[in-house]
Amino acid sequence: MSSLLQNKESLRVPEPTLRRLPWYLSNVKLLKQKGERFVSSTQISKEINIDASQIAKDLSYVNISGRTRVGYEIDTLIAVLEDFLGFTNLHKAFLFGVGSLGGALLHDSGLRHFGLEIVAAFDVNPLLVGSKLNGIPIFHTDDFPRKMQEYDVNIGVLTVPIEIAQQITDYMVEGGIKAVWNFTPFRIRVPESIVVQNTSLYAHLAVMFNRLNYNEIK
Amino acid sequence: MSSLLQNKESLRVPEPTLRRLPWYLSNVKLLKQKGERFVSSTQISKEINIDASQIAKDLSYVNISGRTRVGYEIDTLIAVLEDFLGFTNLHKAFLFGVGSLGGALLHDSGLRHFGLEIVAAFDVNPLLVGSKLNGIPIFHTDDFPRKMQEYDVNIGVLTVPIEIAQQITDYMVEGGIKAVWNFTPFRIRVPESIVVQNTSLYAHLAVMFNRLNYNEIK
Repeated sequence: MSSLLQNKESLRVPEPTLRRLPWYLSNVKLLKQKGERFVSSTQISKEINIDASQIAKDLSYVNISGRTRVGYEIDTLIAVLEDFLGFTNLHKAFLFGVGSLGGALLHDSGLRHFGLEIVAAFDVNPLLVGSKLNGIPIFHTDDFPRKMQEYDVNIGVLTVPIEIAQQITDYMVEGGIKAVWNFTPFRIRVPESIVVQNTSLYAHLAVMFNRLNYNEIK
Repeated sequence: MSSLLQNKESLRVPEPTLRRLPWYLSNVKLLKQKGERFVSSTQISKEINIDASQIAKDLSYVNISGRTRVGYEIDTLIAVLEDFLGFTNLHKAFLFGVGSLGGALLHDSGLRHFGLEIVAAFDVNPLLVGSKLNGIPIFHTDDFPRKMQEYDVNIGVLTVPIEIAQQITDYMVEGGIKAVWNFTPFRIRVPESIVVQNTSLYAHLAVMFNRLNYNEIK
């Protein structure tokens, strides 16, 4: 029982590690293109300026072991990392709010390569409801509970105006959504069992503008 | 001299603060829509579940003072926050790489409301060069140095394939770009004077998938 709990805990990878692993993946993909077959954490370290010991520690979460002197086999490392990060398994999602950003995300078919497929979108705008964007159908928001029966979806992408961000989140959760990818600058509240991933492009812009401003004064 | 340095240092706002300020802004905008005229940090605290003392500390970076008992005047707070975060001042940017994500960002006119205007994009694809997307002209990558003379731009949005992420970054910096908004999962290197803002949608997906997986096993 205790070892079962331990196994379960080992599944919860620290967020900083999860954020660094895609860096290693992209770096190793590049080495593969250059014709390399093996890579060590020291090599990755030199390329991306992160401690080799940190890289080895991060990779210890992933089910792969390196060989002394030669390091990790690149093909295996890529396959194992992509699988571990969830990029090989297509997760279906609904998108809520086909405004400027929502529409932009529907255009981004590249998300499929990283495991996310937006299968349908919801809005109340009569000019949008019933149409398709990049092949993705747009339904009326009222149809969401019915569409949950039809599609095998557990992720909701939130791109609505801030005024209704909380309301639509509640509606999603009530309908059975288990994870909300929140692109609004609004801090949504959810029950403890629901995953929230905040991606605020605007907060990132604020940081970038501040640093730029700071450098200009220097 | 020492006070000048101090003023200069006070411009460098901590990143966690800069990430929280847009939350306060969106929250206060919502209160305004509800007809409120004043707001206290305690009120914001209740809404978004962050310590009132933390909120007061974050707002101390912004040039605004609350009044005892009534708190901050909402109209002033919105105006001062938007200005402080750089959202009222339109920053011009070039985008590099009109693939799936790059094209999606060109469609997102909403970035303008947060101070970013993508004025032109660059690619080498002959099917794209010379055309426009959402009214934004696409030029050949070779034309970038010339276009730098023409437009008043200091931000570059990086949405190229990882194989050329570093090369295009070097090219941007050489051409005079001062801040790179990096959407690739590649960890780019830049001289110390250049600002890099990483926004890896894929890293965010990895975190979300991991947490979802963890909850499903629970």
